[in-house]
Amino acid sequence: MVNGIGDKTLSPLKVFEDLESSVRSYIRSFPAVFSRAQGSRVWDVDGREYIDFIAGAGALNYGHNNPRLKERLVAYIQEDGITHSLDLATSAKAGFLEAFQDVILKPRGMSYKVMFPGPAGTNAVESALKLARKVTGRTTVMAFTNAFHGMTLGSLAATGNRFKRGGAGLPLTNTVIMPYDQYVDGEMDTADYLEQVLDDEGSGIPLPAAIILETVQGEGGVNVARGMWLKKIEKLCRRREIVLIVDDIQVGCGRTGPFFSFEPYGLNPDLVCLSKSLSGYGLPLSVTLIRPEMDIWDPGEHNGTFRGQDLAFLTATEALAYWRTDALTQGTLDNAERVRTVLQDIADAYPSLEATVRGRGLIQGLALGRAGMGAKISQAAFQRGLMAETSGPEGQVLKLLPPLTIDLATLDQGLQILRESVVSVLA
Amino acid sequence: MVNGIGDKTLSPLKVFEDLESSVRSYIRSFPAVFSRAQGSRVWDVDGREYIDFIAGAGALNYGHNNPRLKERLVAYIQEDGITHSLDLATSAKAGFLEAFQDVILKPRGMSYKVMFPGPAGTNAVESALKLARKVTGRTTVMAFTNAFHGMTLGSLAATGNRFKRGGAGLPLTNTVIMPYDQYVDGEMDTADYLEQVLDDEGSGIPLPAAIILETVQGEGGVNVARGMWLKKIEKLCRRREIVLIVDDIQVGCGRTGPFFSFEPYGLNPDLVCLSKSLSGYGLPLSVTLIRPEMDIWDPGEHNGTFRGQDLAFLTATEALAYWRTDALTQGTLDNAERVRTVLQDIADAYPSLEATVRGRGLIQGLALGRAGMGAKISQAAFQRGLMAETSGPEGQVLKLLPPLTIDLATLDQGLQILRESVVSVLA
Amino acid sequence: MVNGIGDKTLSPLKVFEDLESSVRSYIRSFPAVFSRAQGSRVWDVDGREYIDFIAGAGALNYGHNNPRLKERLVAYIQEDGITHSLDLATSAKAGFLEAFQDVILKPRGMSYKVMFPGPAGTNAVESALKLARKVTGRTTVMAFTNAFHGMTLGSLAATGNRFKRGGAGLPLTNTVIMPYDQYVDGEMDTADYLEQVLDDEGSGIPLPAAIILETVQGEGGVNVARGMWLKKIEKLCRRREIVLIVDDIQVGCGRTGPFFSFEPYGLNPDLVCLSKSLSGYGLPLSVTLIRPEMDIWDPGEHNGTFRGQDLAFLTATEALAYWRTDALTQGTLDNAERVRTVLQDIADAYPSLEATVRGRGLIQGLALGRAGMGAKISQAAFQRGLMAETSGPEGQVLKLLPPLTIDLATLDQGLQILRESVVSVLA
Amino acid sequence: MVNGIGDKTLSPLKVFEDLESSVRSYIRSFPAVFSRAQGSRVWDVDGREYIDFIAGAGALNYGHNNPRLKERLVAYIQEDGITHSLDLATSAKAGFLEAFQDVILKPRGMSYKVMFPGPAGTNAVESALKLARKVTGRTTVMAFTNAFHGMTLGSLAATGNRFKRGGAGLPLTNTVIMPYDQYVDGEMDTADYLEQVLDDEGSGIPLPAAIILETVQGEGGVNVARGMWLKKIEKLCRRREIVLIVDDIQVGCGRTGPFFSFEPYGLNPDLVCLSKSLSGYGLPLSVTLIRPEMDIWDPGEHNGTFRGQDLAFLTATEALAYWRTDALTQGTLDNAERVRTVLQDIADAYPSLEATVRGRGLIQGLALGRAGMGAKISQAAFQRGLMAETSGPEGQVLKLLPPLTIDLATLDQGLQILRESVVSVLA
Repeated sequence: MVNGIGDKTLSPLKVFEDLESSVRSYIRSFPAVFSRAQGSRVWDVDGREYIDFIAGAGALNYGHNNPRLKERLVAYIQEDGITHSLDLATSAKAGFLEAFQDVILKPRGMSYKVMFPGPAGTNAVESALKLARKVTGRTTVMAFTNAFHGMTLGSLAATGNRFKRGGAGLPLTNTVIMPYDQYVDGEMDTADYLEQVLDDEGSGIPLPAAIILETVQGEGGVNVARGMWLKKIEKLCRRREIVLIVDDIQVGCGRTGPFFSFEPYGLNPDLVCLSKSLSGYGLPLSVTLIRPEMDIWDPGEHNGTFRGQDLAFLTATEALAYWRTDALTQGTLDNAERVRTVLQDIADAYPSLEATVRGRGLIQGLALGRAGMGAKISQAAFQRGLMAETSGPEGQVLKLLPPLTIDLATLDQGLQILRESVVSVLA
Repeated sequence: MVNGIGDKTLSPLKVFEDLESSVRSYIRSFPAVFSRAQGSRVWDVDGREYIDFIAGAGALNYGHNNPRLKERLVAYIQEDGITHSLDLATSAKAGFLEAFQDVILKPRGMSYKVMFPGPAGTNAVESALKLARKVTGRTTVMAFTNAFHGMTLGSLAATGNRFKRGGAGLPLTNTVIMPYDQYVDGEMDTADYLEQVLDDEGSGIPLPAAIILETVQGEGGVNVARGMWLKKIEKLCRRREIVLIVDDIQVGCGRTGPFFSFEPYGLNPDLVCLSKSLSGYGLPLSVTLIRPEMDIWDPGEHNGTFRGQDLAFLTATEALAYWRTDALTQGTLDNAERVRTVLQDIADAYPSLEATVRGRGLIQGLALGRAGMGAKISQAAFQRGLMAETSGPEGQVLKLLPPLTIDLATLDQGLQILRESVVSVLA
Repeated sequence: MVNGIGDKTLSPLKVFEDLESSVRSYIRSFPAVFSRAQGSRVWDVDGREYIDFIAGAGALNYGHNNPRLKERLVAYIQEDGITHSLDLATSAKAGFLEAFQDVILKPRGMSYKVMFPGPAGTNAVESALKLARKVTGRTTVMAFTNAFHGMTLGSLAATGNRFKRGGAGLPLTNTVIMPYDQYVDGEMDTADYLEQVLDDEGSGIPLPAAIILETVQGEGGVNVARGMWLKKIEKLCRRREIVLIVDDIQVGCGRTGPFFSFEPYGLNPDLVCLSKSLSGYGLPLSVTLIRPEMDIWDPGEHNGTFRGQDLAFLTATEALAYWRTDALTQGTLDNAERVRTVLQDIADAYPSLEATVRGRGLIQGLALGRAGMGAKISQAAFQRGLMAETSGPEGQVLKLLPPLTIDLATLDQGLQILRESVVSVLA
Repeated sequence: MVNGIGDKTLSPLKVFEDLESSVRSYIRSFPAVFSRAQGSRVWDVDGREYIDFIAGAGALNYGHNNPRLKERLVAYIQEDGITHSLDLATSAKAGFLEAFQDVILKPRGMSYKVMFPGPAGTNAVESALKLARKVTGRTTVMAFTNAFHGMTLGSLAATGNRFKRGGAGLPLTNTVIMPYDQYVDGEMDTADYLEQVLDDEGSGIPLPAAIILETVQGEGGVNVARGMWLKKIEKLCRRREIVLIVDDIQVGCGRTGPFFSFEPYGLNPDLVCLSKSLSGYGLPLSVTLIRPEMDIWDPGEHNGTFRGQDLAFLTATEALAYWRTDALTQGTLDNAERVRTVLQDIADAYPSLEATVRGRGLIQGLALGRAGMGAKISQAAFQRGLMAETSGPEGQVLKLLPPLTIDLATLDQGLQILRESVVSVLA
C-alpha cells in the first residue's frame, strides 16, 4: 500500500472532513480514498477497482501513469534533471518546444509562439485575455452562455455558471456573455445575432477585444458548437480585428479526435489555450499559443513561479509521440462511435429518461430530462465500479470522458456498468 | 546528458528565441540552457556549474532535487501511486493533511482548514480574496505599495508594480493600495494613517473585506515590515472584522527562519497563502489556510483541475520532516547572519554603491543607490558562476535567496563571488 | 429685440464658434440664433419664423412659453415667491405635490412617493438605479439596445449608443444590455430570450436589481415596444423581485396620449422617471416616482443643490391643469392620426425612400432606408421654416415631436413643409 | 400669500411627510414651509422671518430674488424670450458667452472654451471627468478625502462621504482617493506623498487622467487648502500631463472673495466646474470651462435636454455685472473678517466648545469638538430666526454662508443670533 491511513481512523474519509475546507467537491460524489492508478483503472486503499470515465476531467487523455512517460520521468528524476526552472532555458523545455513545433504545429501548417503562463488552465486563459486587450486596446471580452474558463477573476468573468460567478464576491465586469450555438430554440442563429449586435451602433455592446469560446462546452453540459457556427464567429472576428481565442483546455489534446478540437473546421484562432492533458501525466502544465504578430508582450509583463516545470515538459514531450501517427485520432473516433451507440441505445430503451445524446469524440454526454437523475446514475455507477461525473449548471448531463488510450474491453465493461446503473436507478 | 539540443543549433538559446513568446524573462538575464541540478548547484548543457542564490524565487528552500524527497518520489511513481486526482481523496493527500496538521499547525497552536485552490500561488491569493469577500459581504480589498500577489486579475489588482498592472489591459478595481510600513519617510506611521482613513466617514475609502500583506515584500524590493506595525494592522483588522490575509508564498516555508514568517510577532492571520516551497521539490502546489469559522465555502464554489497533485503531496509531506526539529530554523538564522555580515561589509567597503542591507532570514537584499547597478552586479556574478537576481520595481535591489539547506562552503563561495562581482563592476 | 448680437459680428453664430465647446450639437443642424418663441413657433434674431416639431426634444409638450403658465410665473416672481429652496418645504413645492397626487396619481389608482433627484432627467435615472440596487442588494441592471437614459456615468452605462458610451473614457460596468422588443428579426420574442437567460443558472447573466426601459425609444430611433412584450417584462420582473423602472422622460407627460406612456397596457412600474415636459415651461425639473414600500432611502442619501426649483414647481403645477380633463389626450391622439397619415402617404408616394412609419401618439418617426437621407430632409425642412430632427444611432429616422398643444393649422403647415422637403431632396 | 396650504392641513409639513420620499433632508433640520424671499431674508407661510446663512448651499451668492436680475427676468418672460433651447444658438446664450468672456475671462488673462454640460453641478463634474479621460486616454481620477463632487455615479466615485458613496449600491471604481491638504497630522505634506506615489513604479497607483479638487471643501467640513499645497499639486500635474480640474461649484462665483477661488494662488486649472451661483437667481445652470487645446469633444458626444436654459443665461449675464468692479470682492473680504472675528470670539469665550475657526471669504466654519453640538446650535439658531447648517461627514462643523450681498446690519444680526444660540445650547 502506498500510504496507510486506514489504520488511524475508522473512516478513511474522516481526515478530509476534519482538515480540508468545505469547498472540496469530487470527494463528495466519489467517497473513497484512492491510492493507485494505471491506464483506465484506479484502485482505492481497500483494493477496490474502478474504471475511470472522468480521466481527471480531461487531464488524463493518455491514461493514468502512462508507462511510456513514466519510464522517461523516473530516469530524468534519477539523473537529477532540473525540476524547477522559473522561465530559464532548460534542455527539457527546449525539447518540448521543438517537439511541439515538429509534431503539432508544422504538420498542421500552424505558426504560433508558445507562452508558458503558469501551471493551470486558468493561467492560460488569463494570459490570453490580457494579451487580447493589449493587442487591441479594447477592454471588453465576449464569452458564451455556459462557458467555463476558470476560477481566477479574469477567467471567472468569462464563465457562465452563476454559482461559481457568485464566488467572486464582487461584480464581474468587462465581459459580455452572448448566447452559444443553438442556445436559443428555433430559427435564430446566435452568430447572426452576435453580428447584428456588433454592427448596431446603438446596441450598447462595445466592440470587444476578443471572443473566447470552447468548441465543445465540457463543464457547461457537453454543448457542441457546429462547424458552420464556429466559422461564422471566426469570420466576424476577422472583419473587425477581434481576437479569436479558443479555449481548448478540456477538448484539445485529442479529446475530440484530432489534436486541436477545431481542426476539422479549418479554424485559425489567434490564441489557443491548452492545459489538462498537455503534460500527459496529470502534471500541471499550460501553454498559450500566440499568432506571432500578436506576440507583443514585454519581457516579464506576465510572470509567475511555476512556469518552468521540467518534469511536465519531459512527459509532455514524450506524450507528443502519440501524435506522430494518426492512430490515436482514429482510435478515439472509433471508440467515440461505440460510446455514442450505447448511449443512444440507452436513450432509446428508456424513454422515461427523456435523454438525448450529445458530444464529439470521446467527450459524450447523456442529457437527462429529469432533475437529479444524472447524480443518481453517477452514484449507482460508482457503487458498481465506474467513475462518471455530471455536467451542466444543474448537473443535468451525465458526461463520459474515458482516457483516449482505453482498451476496448475496458470501454465495453464501463459502458455495461453504465447501462446496469441506469436500469437500477429506474427500477 | 539529459536532453540534447546542442547538436541541432549553433546557439542553444535559439530555440527559445524562435519558438517561445517574448514574455520570457529570466532567460534574458541568465542566458544558458540548464539541464541538471542538485542542492544549491545547477549545471548547464555545457557542463558549467552555477551556485544558485535564486532558489526558484523561493520555490526551492530545500534545494534542488532534495535526495530525501527524490527517493520517495521515485518509489511512488514506480508503484503507480495515483498522480492526478482532481479533489478526490487520496492516500497521498491524506498523508499531507495529517502531516501538516501534526508537524506545523498543532505544535504552533494553530487551527486552520486547508484548501487546495489550484497549483500556483496566485490561485491561493485569488481564493483568499474571494473568501474574504464572501465572509464579509464587502468588495474592497486593501493591499500595499510594492506588494506582489500574482498575475491573474484578482491578484494583480492587489499588486503594486505598475508595469505588471498595465498588463491587465483594463482598469484594476475593488482594491485600495495603502502605504506599506516605512513607505513614507519621517515620523508618520502608515498603520496610523490606515486607521485614520478607516475611521473617517469622509475618507472615501470603504471598509474593506480584507487586508492582504506580505511580512517581507520579496518582489517589491525586500521591504521588511516591523513586528509592531504588523501587530497594529492585525489589531485594526480585528476591531472592524476585516479579514487579515498573510501572503506567505515567498517568505513562508522557513525562508525567514520559522515556518511561517509571522510567527515571531504572534500574528494570527485569518487566511494564509502558501505555495512555492510547499511541495519541497519545485512542483506546483498551493494551499489556503482558513480560520475554521470562515470556512463557509459551498462545495465546488471554487474549483479547478490541478488540485490533486499527488506527487507534490508526497514530496510536501516528506519536506515537512524538516520541521520536526528546529535545526533548519537555526541553520537559516545562522546563515542569514553570515549573509548579512558580508552584505554589510560590501556596503561599507564600497560607499559609491550607496548601498543598504535589508532582509530577514535567508531573504536578504542589497539596495543600491545607482540605477542599473543591480543588473550589472547580477550579470557579473552569473559570468562567475553565481545566480542572483534583482528585485524592486526598477530592479534597484540585489536579492539573495540561497536554499535554506545550503552548506557553509557553498554559501561562502557564493558570497565570495558576489564580492568579486561588485569589485569588477565598480572597476 | 431681446438681445442684440447681430451688430457685433458679421455672422451671429461666430460667438458660439469662438467661445463654446466643440461638443455643441443642435446648433450645427439648425444654424440660426433664436430669440423668441410662442406655442409651436420660434423666431430667430433676423425675424425668421419656424414651426417647431422638436419641442425641446420632448420638453415642450405644452408649447413654448405657454400663456397660462407664463402669467402665474411672472406673478410669482414679482411677488418674490421663493425661487431656490434646496429641499426645504415651500408652498410652491407643496402645491406641486398635492396637485400631482390629486390630478395624476389618485385618478389612476397609483401610489408613489415623489423624489426630487436633481433638475435633469439623468438625475432621475441615476437615483432610480441607486434605489433599485439598494432595495435588492444586487448590482447589475438590465437595459436595452438603443436605450437612452442620460450622460452621467450610471445612466450612460444603461444607454445603447456606442458613440456616447465611448465618451465615458472607461469601461461601463454593472449593466447588461438585452435586445429590445422586435430587435431580432423573425419569430424570436426577446422577452422570452430574457427569461431564458434569467432562468439558466449557466447563462453568465446575474439576476439583476432592475430592468429599465422606455416604452418608446425616442433617441434610439422611435422604436415602439408592444404592450404584450411590456407585460411579459413586467411579469418576469415580478416573479423574481426585479425592480421595474420605466424611464418616461421623453414619452411621459402626455407625449403618447395618456399622461404616462404605459397606461394603456396596465403596467405598474416600481419606479418611474419623469422630467422634460414636467415643468411645462422648459424649466429643469425631474421626479422619481417610488412604490412606497421601496422608499427606503435614508435622509440625504442622495442629495444635490437644485432640487428645490420653485419656479418649476409653480409652472409644473399649473401644467397639471391640462390633465383634469381628457381633452389633451384626445387631441394628441387625433393629431397623431393626422401625422401618421401624412407620413404613411409620404412613404407610399416615394418608395425610393424605403421608408416605414413608426411611433405612438405625437412621437412619430419616418425610418429611412438610405443613409444620410434623414439629415438631408431635416436640412431642407429647416430652410423652409420647419424644425425636425433625426434619431437613431446613425440618424436614420426622421422624428416628429410637435407640441401636444399645436393647433391644426400649424400642424398641417408643418406637415406640408415636410412633404415639400422630401420632394426637394428626392429631386 | 403665494400659495395656501395652511388651510388644508393642521401641519403644513404633513403634505411632505405623506407624499415626498424619505430621502428629503434639509426639511428635517428646518421644519417650516417657506414662501417668500428677498435678499438675505426668507419668510415662511406663517409670516415668520429668517436670516439666511445657508444661501442655497452657495447657490444664492447675490441673495434671493436679486432685484436687478428680477427686473430683466420678468421683462424677458413677458416678451416671450425663448426659454428652453436645447443647445441651439440663442441671443440669451450669446449674451452670456460674451459677457463671461469680457467680464470674467479676458480681464484675468484666461482662455477657456465654455461647455454647457447640463443644469446641475454634477453634470459639470461628470463632463470634466469624461473629457480628462478622453484627453489622456487614462481611466483613473484622483480625488481627495472629504471631497464632494455630486451624486451621479461618476461624481460620486470622486466623493469622500462613505454614507453617500454607499448609496451607489455597487463598488465605485476608477477613482483613487488621496489625503487632502493637512489631512495627516504632523510634518507630512500630503502633496509630497501624492508625488511619491506617482513616481514610484511599484506604488500600485496608476498615473491618473486627472486630479480633481476643491480649494475649500464646503461639504466636507470647510477644509481650506493652502496656496502652496495647491501650487504643488498643479506643478505635479503639469510634469506628468495630468489634467487639473478645479471644482469651484460651491466656492467659485465670488464666495471666497475673487470670482474664482483659485485666483489668489495663480492657479491655471485645465478644467473648471461652475454651477450654483452662476445663474445668480438660483436657477439651475452649470458650465465646464475647458482649456482650448483640450476641447476635443466630438459634437454631441455629451448631450442632454437642459443645456439651453435661457432664463438662467439671462440672469447669469446680469449677475456678471457685479464683476465689472471689485466692490463685491472687497465687500466679501470685509464681511468675512467680521464673521471670522465673531466666530473666534465665540471659540475663545466658550472653551467647552473645543471650537476652531476655519474658512476663506464668506465660507466660514466653526469646527466643534463635541459630537452633535453643531446640530444643536443650528436648531437653536433656527428657533431664533437664523438658518445655518452643519458640514463634515459627521456634521461636526457649523458652516456659515451668508449671501455675498448681505448688508452689515443683517450680517451682525445673524451673528448675534448665532452667539445667543451657542449660549443657550451651552446653558
